[in-house]
Amino acid sequence: MLCLQSRTESAWLQRAVAHTADILIDHAHCERKAATNALQILGRFPDRPELVAPLLALAREELEHFEVVLALLHTRGIALGSQVPSGYQAKLHQLMRRDAPHKLLDVLLVAALIEARSCERFKILAAHHPDGELRQAFASLLEAEARHHATFVRLAELVAPREEVRSRLSALAQAECAILEAMPAVARIHA
Amino acid sequence: MLCLQSRTESAWLQRAVAHTADILIDHAHCERKAATNALQILGRFPDRPELVAPLLALAREELEHFEVVLALLHTRGIALGSQVPSGYQAKLHQLMRRDAPHKLLDVLLVAALIEARSCERFKILAAHHPDGELRQAFASLLEAEARHHATFVRLAELVAPREEVRSRLSALAQAECAILEAMPAVARIHA
Repeated sequence: MLCLQSRTESAWLQRAVAHTADILIDHAHCERKAATNALQILGRFPDRPELVAPLLALAREELEHFEVVLALLHTRGIALGSQVPSGYQAKLHQLMRRDAPHKLLDVLLVAALIEARSCERFKILAAHHPDGELRQAFASLLEAEARHHATFVRLAELVAPREEVRSRLSALAQAECAILEAMPAVARIHA
Repeated sequence: MLCLQSRTESAWLQRAVAHTADILIDHAHCERKAATNALQILGRFPDRPELVAPLLALAREELEHFEVVLALLHTRGIALGSQVPSGYQAKLHQLMRRDAPHKLLDVLLVAALIEARSCERFKILAAHHPDGELRQAFASLLEAEARHHATFVRLAELVAPREEVRSRLSALAQAECAILEAMPAVARIHA
């Protein structure tokens, strides 16, 4: 699906259903972090005017989704709360190259991958979560995740030739599978 | 003005008028960073449900203002671009205490101070900048800065007794004056 190189197994869904509150809290933080990340990319690479409008629109939408998930938490009486990070994002960040021409490319492609994995998992929740309201919520959000994935890949293609984008995305996607496989069995969107 | 312990001198205005493009670029980044900061506070202190709604509303508004300033830059043919940081924020961050009960208080009060200084300087630009469109833009934004200052102080009063908030804010405001005085003569909102 999208650029992903592994399919999520049913054990993940079972964990997500058994720990729905944890998944919703994690989901809220994911939307919050996605908005923050888009704004931080604009701060780190301000000399790329082609990034401004797409990332601003993306940040605005992620912020709206953060509100949607906060409302879901609120109606369920769940506080936002803190969570021990699964390490997924930190491990993906370690893969990013630090030198100037590759840095931005990797930042965009890692963001694309995270959106792709969210999309894949939202699709599973939208199809199989026993709570109808949550099925509907995840169904309404997964389209945006797919669109954001496409936005990041499109922006990557403004930064590097399409062939390079494709091969780097494939390498990162392979690493992403390995990261997920080595992850502890916690209830997170990306774990 | 607000909690500030020094008044901006006319040399700052002269520098701001002479380097209007730099001021606008800096202003755009200030709005972007303010949105990011509000969202990051929610990530760092997720166990404080009373912060969520006010900081989410603030982030949304800062994002709108970021767009307003980007539009001002666009009509003037100025690219967002990068800037050497003045060191103002970094020096304010060094003042923040790291231990748990004081950490959040200082985060909120430093944010309150930055909003107060923006408000004071927007007021000067709204009154004295030779460009009428910019005068109007700064006039329309300064009310929000004052409101955001008040929001951060109000949130601080949920975290610590009012007396403690007042004395800590006063100490930080004094340090802020010293930081500004020692600043290089660059054209920035906070320099």
